[in-house]
Amino acid sequence: MRTRDPEAKKQLLFEAALAEFAEFGRAGARIDRMARRAGISPGLVYSFYEGKAELFDAVFDRIVDLIVASVPIDADRLPEYAGHLHDAGGSHPEVMRFLKWYDLERGDSSQRAAVAASMSEKVAAITEAQRRGTVTTARPAAHILALVLTLANMWHLPGEDVAGLVPEPERRALVTSAVAALVTP
Amino acid sequence: MRTRDPEAKKQLLFEAALAEFAEFGRAGARIDRMARRAGISPGLVYSFYEGKAELFDAVFDRIVDLIVASVPIDADRLPEYAGHLHDAGGSHPEVMRFLKWYDLERGDSSQRAAVAASMSEKVAAITEAQRRGTVTTARPAAHILALVLTLANMWHLPGEDVAGLVPEPERRALVTSAVAALVTP
Repeated sequence: MRTRDPEAKKQLLFEAALAEFAEFGRAGARIDRMARRAGISPGLVYSFYEGKAELFDAVFDRIVDLIVASVPIDADRLPEYAGHLHDAGGSHPEVMRFLKWYDLERGDSSQRAAVAASMSEKVAAITEAQRRGTVTTARPAAHILALVLTLANMWHLPGEDVAGLVPEPERRALVTSAVAALVTP
Repeated sequence: MRTRDPEAKKQLLFEAALAEFAEFGRAGARIDRMARRAGISPGLVYSFYEGKAELFDAVFDRIVDLIVASVPIDADRLPEYAGHLHDAGGSHPEVMRFLKWYDLERGDSSQRAAVAASMSEKVAAITEAQRRGTVTTARPAAHILALVLTLANMWHLPGEDVAGLVPEPERRALVTSAVAALVTP
């Protein structure tokens, strides 16, 4: 599908770049192949982004925004929130692969602004839920969030030992029940 | 340090290959650079291993053996076992990086024999501990092992959001206390 709308072209490029980076990583990805996948010219890619490194960061920031928008935190129901994050990870393996490459290949190790903002919001939401009495106060809100995110994404730990231990149909219930055991007041 | 002993040379190659793969991944690693790091000839590398893919798998198997040997499971004290795994991961960041590359780059997705054997042993040890009454029977042994391994390695999840939430000095206690909350009968 070709279009003259720059925003639509950027969206096509985002999808093509995500697929390319997920498959090959930053080092192995090629701008010309992304442009072909997106149906745009390589020159247009360089008019949007300085190069591969900047595009890699832009795809990361976009993914963080999409995850935050599609799975908003529900601090009063953290087990269900973990279940939704689990579902999102399972239905978007290309995003999980991208995040693994990003972890290994991004140049500077400081946290991206998009991640820091999203984490602060979530910690604040859990702190409010602790005040309302729906989440345990036995741990700081940041620790609770770390446990929730960890358990929701447990099948994506490097090594895949963990995924091998639990058949797919049992995974979601293990995530939600473990979160419930750790966060219920 | 040069040596004529083939086993000693293999050990030097293992160390050099681990460092090279951890830095560049399989696609980016170069046999000639590993040989130089190990102080051996590239020809000797090819006399030990058919090529980069075979060496990549050999380093993985060796790492699994080393982790199993250096952090044996203590099924009656799973929180401490998780603490030891946490310590091992923290003191060997190059191993964690290697495992992340391995996850992304290994050709076939089936579980390596070394991992399968080590997982079966651990599940059997937890089952015995459940019989002795030192571990909860509310969950199957394989699920408990999945939770223990996940929490012990929680700082290595892709994205690094989780590590950003908890300062280093608080991390070990969060791992051991969360495991205790989930496995104590």
